[in-house]
Order: sequence, then C-alpha cells, then structure tokens
Amino acid sequence: MEFSVEQIASFLNGEVIGNGSIKVSNLSKIDDGKPGTLSFLANSKYTHFIYETEASAVLVRRDFVPEQEVKTTLIKVDDPYACLALLLNMVDQATRPQKNGIEENSFIAKNANLGEDIYVGAFTYISNNASIGNNCKIFPQCYIGDNVKIGSNCIIYPGVKIYHNCVIGNNVIIHAGTVIGSDGFGFAPQNGEYVKIAQIGNVVVEDNVEIGANTTIDRATMGSTIIKRGAKLDNLIQVAHNVEIGESTVMAAQVGVAGSTKVGKHCMIGGQVGFAGHITIGDNVNIGAQSGIPNNVDSKSNLLGYPAIPAKEFARQVVMMKRLPEINNSIRELQKEIANLKSQLAEKDIK
Amino acid sequence: MEFSVEQIASFLNGEVIGNGSIKVSNLSKIDDGKPGTLSFLANSKYTHFIYETEASAVLVRRDFVPEQEVKTTLIKVDDPYACLALLLNMVDQATRPQKNGIEENSFIAKNANLGEDIYVGAFTYISNNASIGNNCKIFPQCYIGDNVKIGSNCIIYPGVKIYHNCVIGNNVIIHAGTVIGSDGFGFAPQNGEYVKIAQIGNVVVEDNVEIGANTTIDRATMGSTIIKRGAKLDNLIQVAHNVEIGESTVMAAQVGVAGSTKVGKHCMIGGQVGFAGHITIGDNVNIGAQSGIPNNVDSKSNLLGYPAIPAKEFARQVVMMKRLPEINNSIRELQKEIANLKSQLAEKDIK
Amino acid sequence: MEFSVEQIASFLNGEVIGNGSIKVSNLSKIDDGKPGTLSFLANSKYTHFIYETEASAVLVRRDFVPEQEVKTTLIKVDDPYACLALLLNMVDQATRPQKNGIEENSFIAKNANLGEDIYVGAFTYISNNASIGNNCKIFPQCYIGDNVKIGSNCIIYPGVKIYHNCVIGNNVIIHAGTVIGSDGFGFAPQNGEYVKIAQIGNVVVEDNVEIGANTTIDRATMGSTIIKRGAKLDNLIQVAHNVEIGESTVMAAQVGVAGSTKVGKHCMIGGQVGFAGHITIGDNVNIGAQSGIPNNVDSKSNLLGYPAIPAKEFARQVVMMKRLPEINNSIRELQKEIANLKSQLAEKDIK
Repeated sequence: MEFSVEQIASFLNGEVIGNGSIKVSNLSKIDDGKPGTLSFLANSKYTHFIYETEASAVLVRRDFVPEQEVKTTLIKVDDPYACLALLLNMVDQATRPQKNGIEENSFIAKNANLGEDIYVGAFTYISNNASIGNNCKIFPQCYIGDNVKIGSNCIIYPGVKIYHNCVIGNNVIIHAGTVIGSDGFGFAPQNGEYVKIAQIGNVVVEDNVEIGANTTIDRATMGSTIIKRGAKLDNLIQVAHNVEIGESTVMAAQVGVAGSTKVGKHCMIGGQVGFAGHITIGDNVNIGAQSGIPNNVDSKSNLLGYPAIPAKEFARQVVMMKRLPEINNSIRELQKEIANLKSQLAEKDIK
Repeated sequence: MEFSVEQIASFLNGEVIGNGSIKVSNLSKIDDGKPGTLSFLANSKYTHFIYETEASAVLVRRDFVPEQEVKTTLIKVDDPYACLALLLNMVDQATRPQKNGIEENSFIAKNANLGEDIYVGAFTYISNNASIGNNCKIFPQCYIGDNVKIGSNCIIYPGVKIYHNCVIGNNVIIHAGTVIGSDGFGFAPQNGEYVKIAQIGNVVVEDNVEIGANTTIDRATMGSTIIKRGAKLDNLIQVAHNVEIGESTVMAAQVGVAGSTKVGKHCMIGGQVGFAGHITIGDNVNIGAQSGIPNNVDSKSNLLGYPAIPAKEFARQVVMMKRLPEINNSIRELQKEIANLKSQLAEKDIK
Repeated sequence: MEFSVEQIASFLNGEVIGNGSIKVSNLSKIDDGKPGTLSFLANSKYTHFIYETEASAVLVRRDFVPEQEVKTTLIKVDDPYACLALLLNMVDQATRPQKNGIEENSFIAKNANLGEDIYVGAFTYISNNASIGNNCKIFPQCYIGDNVKIGSNCIIYPGVKIYHNCVIGNNVIIHAGTVIGSDGFGFAPQNGEYVKIAQIGNVVVEDNVEIGANTTIDRATMGSTIIKRGAKLDNLIQVAHNVEIGESTVMAAQVGVAGSTKVGKHCMIGGQVGFAGHITIGDNVNIGAQSGIPNNVDSKSNLLGYPAIPAKEFARQVVMMKRLPEINNSIRELQKEIANLKSQLAEKDIK
C-alpha cells in the first residue's frame, strides 16, 4: 500500500506545498516521523518538530505559516486531526486481521441464538439462551453467560467474561480480559462475620460504548448497573454495583466508582480518580487525575484534588503548601517583633 | 414466580399495612421501585422515597411511622435489610443458572482428584495432582495449576488462574479473571540490571473468603501469602508476596498491599488505599478511600489521608487547607500593623 | 530434597558456626523460620529475630557478631541475600512443574511458526503468521494474535492475551491475565459524541522484561508502545498508547502511565503512582508510592506527593500540615496582641 502525496491531498481535498510526487506507505507521529511516512501537526506544542521531522509529508492546517525552512512536503487541510483519523481508519481496515465464521472448538449451547456474518473464536463459550447480533466478532476464550444479549456489530476481544443476564447494545467494543456482571460487593455483618448479599441484577451496556482491557463492571444488587450510550471506559476501571455512567462520558484508566453512584453525561474523568458510593455527579464535569470525590458534584464543575475542590483553588492550594515553611517563619518573626514592641512599650511605662 | 404481599409478610413474620393481596414478582431499590416489585427501606437517608416509590410494597422497620400519606403497601419487619437479604438469596437460588458435571473440552490431568457433584466447564484446565472438593463449580476457561488444593463448595468463575501449589479453603468464591499465585515482585540489582528472585512459596486462601474480579494475589517468596477466614476482597486488588489479610477484613476495589505487610482482622479498607510493604496493621482498623499507609497502624484506628492520619484530624486539615490563602493574608496584615506600630513608637521616641 | 548445613555452606563457600550436621529441606523467612528450614538475615531491621528464630540455620554476613546467645546454626557468607537468591532458584528449578510439547486442544494456525522445545498449553490460540522462539512456554488459554513475534526462552503464563502485530523479545516473562496490544484510548469529539481513532501501531517488549499479572499495555496509535530491555512491571499496571518505559526501570503494582509519556531508565516507581500524558521522566528517578506526576521530571529526582515534589520537601510539608491548627491559633494570638498594643499606644496618646 503506497500512495503519492498528491493522491492523498486530492482525497483529503488538501493543498500540496512541496514535492507532491513523493510516496508514503504508513502514518507516523511528527516526533517519530520516518521517511516514507505521512505525519500530522494538530497540537501547536509540537510545531517545532515540523522543522526537523524526517516524515516525507505532514498534514497541517490551511493557515499554517512556517517560521523557518521546512524540508518536508506539507498538505494543507481544514482539520489535520480529522484527516489523520480518516487515514488511520483506512489503514486499520486494510491491515487488521479479518475474522469470520464459527471456529471449531468453540462451545455454543444448542439454544443460543447467533446472528448472521458473525465470528466466534475457538475456546469461546456461549451459554444457554444467549443471543449474539449480526456482524459481531467474538474472539477466542470469551465467556458469554446464560441469557446474555449482545446487539449487532460488536467486537468482543479475547478472554472477555460476561456473566448471565447482562445486556450489551450495538456497536460495542470490549477489550481483552474485561469482566462484566461479576457480583457486586455486598455483605451484611452478622455475628462478627460477613454474610453475602445475593446480587440478582445485571449490567446493561448501551450502544456505541467502548470498554478497555481488564476493566470490571459489577452486576447490580437489584436492577441494573448501566453504561450509557457512547460512554468510553479505559483499562482497569472498576464500576461497582448499581452505578450509572452517563452518555458520552469518558473515563481514563484505573478510575474506581463505588456502589450506586451516578455519573452524568459528557463528563471527562482523569486516570485513577475515585468516586465514593451513593453520590451524584452532574453533566459536563471535568475531574483531574487521581482526585477523590466524596460528595455530589454540580454540573460543569472542574475539580481536582483529594478531596477534590475547584481546579483553580487546588492550584492556589499547591502554591500555598509550598509556602508553608515561609508562613511558619513569618509567624515566628512576628512573634519576636511583638515581644520587642511589648518590651519597648513597657520600658516607656517605666520611664 | 409471583407472590402476594401477604404470603411474603407471613414468611418474614411481618405485619401488612395496606393492600396485602397485591402481587409482586421481583425486588427493587426504593428509588427505582416499579409496580410488581417489593422494595425496602433500611437507610433513613432514603426515607423520602417511600412517599413517591412505585414499588407495590416496601419492607420497613416495625417502628416506622410515615410523616405523610403512603400509597404503597408496607410490610413491617424487625430488620428490613436482613429480610431483603433473605429474599435476594431465594431469588438468586431460583434464577441463577445451575451447572453440573464435567463438560467436554475441559482438560483434566489423569492424576487430578475430583470430588463429587462438581461442575467443570469447557476449556478449563486442571493440572497434575490438583484436587477439587465436593460440590465445587469451576466455570469455563479456568486454570488450576499443579498440586492446587480446592476445598468443598467453592465457586470459581470463568477465567480464574490459580498457579501451582496454591491452597483454597471451603466455601470460597473467586470471580472471573482473578489470578492467584503469580510470582511475587522480587528482583535483586546486579551490575545495573535486575535478576529475578525465584518465588517458591504459595498462596493460601482460607474458608469463606470471597475475591472479586481481576484481582491479583502473588505467591510468597518463601512460605505463604495468606487470605484468612472470611475476608472479602473486591475487584482489581493487588496483594503482594508474603502479605497476610486478617479474618473478616473487608477491602474495597483497587486496594494495593505491598510485600510482607500484615493486615489485622475485622478491618474495613476503602477503595484505592495503598499499604507500604513490611508494615503491620492492627485489628478493627478503618481506613478511608485512597489513603496511603506508610507505617504500622494501631488496632481500632480510624485513618484517612495521604499519608493517612486520624480521620478527624484529616477533616480539620482539609478545612485548614481551604483557609490557607486567608492565613497568608492575615500574616501580611499583621506585618503591616507591626510596621505601623513600630513607626508610631519611633515617632514617640523622637518626640 | 534434604541437605546438611555443611553441604550448603561448602556449596556457598561459607563458614559454619554451630551444628553443621543438621539437615534442612526448605527455605524460610527469619520471622517465620521453622525447624528443618534454612533462613537468612539480610536486612538489619530483622536482626532481633535471629535470637528467637526456629529455623535450623541462618545465612548471615561474615562480619555478623551476635549480641546475645544464638541457638540456630549460622552460615557466614559474603552476601546472604545473593546466596539466598541462588538457593531459591535451585529449589524453584527442582520443584516448579516442567511443561513440554504441544498439548491437544490448542489451536495453532497452519502458517504459525513454532520454535524448538516449546510448550503450548491446551486452549491456547496461536494465530496466523505468529512466531514463537525456541524454548518458550506458552501456558493454557493464551491468545497470540496475527503476526505476533515472540523471541526465545519466554514464559507466557495462562490467559495472557497478545493482540496482532506485537513483538516480544527474548527471556521475557508475562504473568497470567495480562493484556498486550489492546487499542489505545483515542477518541475525537464530533457533534457531541466521541468517534474512535483507529490504533494502528503495536507494542514492543524488549529482552529480559518481566510483566506481572492482569497488567494492560495498549498498542500505539502509530509506531510502538515500548517496554525496554530489562524493565520490570508488577501487577495491574496501565501503560497507555505510545508510552516508553526505559531500560531496567522497575514499577510497582497499579501504576498508571498516560499516553505518549516517556519514562527513563533505571527508575524506581512506587505502587499506584500516576503519570500524566505527554511528559518525559529522566533516568534514575525515584518516585514514592501514590504520587501524581503532572510534569516532566529531571534525572536523579527523588519525588513524592500529589502533585509530586522533592521527597524531603514533602516530608516537611507533612509536618507543616500537622501544625496548621497551631499556625492558625498563633495568628489569632498575634492579632489579639497587636490589638492590645494598639490600644496601649492609643492610651499613651491620650495621656
């Protein structure tokens, strides 16, 4: 697969500045650009790399004006990142292994219900009364429990485990090793021991959700744990029983959400953030990495810290924290000065 | 499965207030109650929902007195939560898929020792000299290593991996994807590189333990990593080599315990807490979410923070932190005042 | 397997103090030493155990001089820990189950390329055009994607999933449940939803790397996510797309590294540390557990905290934090004193 820069520019409705006949066969990051690759400049933080990149061509914005000589060929487009995304997708489609059919050595219960044009990998186990929609790809070593319903066009990567009664929508992608529907963590103290509370609910993952690798989503005690339409969850995330994650909310890796908490829609949650249980997070909330969220959060909040506070306030606190030794010294200084003033005043009295 | 409220009240030794002939077929949370379901009120924080819930009936405490009109039927019982737990368990028993027998396409070494009335799912691998007690259910795609011993009445969910020589007690539940007995993280520096220290110990999980999904428990360097009787571990927890977790200690998701640390019994550990290595935590210790524990902790401590301090002290610190800008301003104010006083005093001297 | 203390001392070039004819058959930690075991004293923190250990013999440094009576037999050696490591390795070699050959019920694509003297466990799936070097052990239930290349002498424990196109070096150990090559977390906002950015890169794991259980390493968007020679990663670690981890860097469990961050060589990273994306960490950097790293870090830094600061500064901050209530009181005291001084001065004026 090799294209000339002119071919690509024409496809992207872009303008070539430089040698358009040069050929590229792969994509690259601008700080890692190699000859024969097409790179891109979307983040101005990386602008300086354009003067030194070895990439054969670079996608830039139409209004980009170089501040010094550029050796690489430029393709000026309206939105370099969107163009890159398009090209990445084309490369991916062309190179990602295509899988089809039911492989031998899979286990499919007799009353499971399989759609058309699906892939079921070897050593995958599809239980009683499970149903898999059209065009799904279930990679090897997955476990699909009893009565699980999976919509159309889903990709379930190797080793995913989905417990009984869970429901997965359409166009859902779940990465390797993720567990959906494990029992919620519910125990009642009784005579100094803990007795298990049965977890009879399920997990519902709505359309267009993507879930990373080795993430865990517990089934509800009653009702459903819900990941709403278009939410994106990264790797190693913990979602406890009866949690709801709102539409188009994005969570980075290793976030933990405790039981019954509701996270709103269009939120952006940084890595390793922890949410207490039984709280409500509004919409369009932004939470910085490693924050701890003990209480409800209003919509449009922008929080950071442990416990989290408005991000601007946190930045001030961090500065203040650094000044603490200075503050401490100032107080000692003041104490001395006051002692001095007092004794001076006393002297005057004596006089 | 449908019961009248009267039937349920009679079974629970409860008193019906309202329409006892109404039928229910499922359980619900009071804030999510739907017609045809039986809900419960155990936490007074949720009391206001009882006036608006659509649940057909609600379990309440015998001493519950409504403050306004209640449309739903009430069942008054001594302990609504205990009654709920009982009912949840009955529903779970009646609806959770029952598995039995040795499925084809499992691998069982010839000298493995299998108890009676067990389930072994397809694609599960049981190694040489492993033994599985009576009434165990080993779901598909599990790996049971050489010489592993599993007691009776255990449930091992899909994809659990148990390395050689580990020992699992009776009535143990292990959720999908959990790894038990992986090598402890031990390396010795040598000429600028790290050389692996072989890990020849094992993991011992005692009776009545439950372990969540995708948790990892490393084998000991020598001796055993031990999860003691009745401990409950949530999802994505890391237990390092030679750690001991005490009886009936409960750990929420994503906790990490570094090597050789001993956690006492009846402790409650919040999510994402981290313990340093080689420390000892007493009994009945309560640690808030995301805390960092660098040192030994006395029994009955109630800690929070990074590094953790008594929870009450942490609450004060958080308030103080918010006052830091104010403190800083006060100091400047004081400095000005003292400068004023000094100059006034100096003036007096001159006069 | 039983040896006399004299035999062991002779093998280790050590000196016996006490009864050399006593037999030992296993190794133990000194605080857990049992008769019939050989223990070791490498960390002076544990010295007091030598006077009470039940271990039959203990490895000590040549310059060790007991401060009271020692009942156990001593073996004096140059480096007790190195000797222990040697013995542990011998015991491990002798007792760890040996696996060989291709087990039935594995799936091996016709054009996969298998080296000599390898083990492939049942229910493992080796895809098209994958290649496995000599002397590798691939345990049951692993997934090796299309075009994956694995070098020689690797151990891949049960249930590891390696996506297509990833490259694993020689002498690599990967523990159970780890996922390598899952899609990086890349989405572009578009009309209020998120559109997936295809991830066409791969993961490269160089020689002598060890990776713990249930860790996740995402493939690069373009290019490679790289774990360099001799790095050691513990359990449940998240490595995002396009990250590089330097040579002989050691990361404890549950660390998270966000996208495109480069971590230098010979770093030591504590458990649960989080790194922001697109930053560069120097060489020989030491970062304490649970720290948050928002920005670039210079080589040889020793950091701690959230956000991380030099570890010594953090220690001072922690002390200062505890003094905050005191600081607050001091300020009030000062305010009172100044009010007093002012009124005294005013009085004088009146006089």
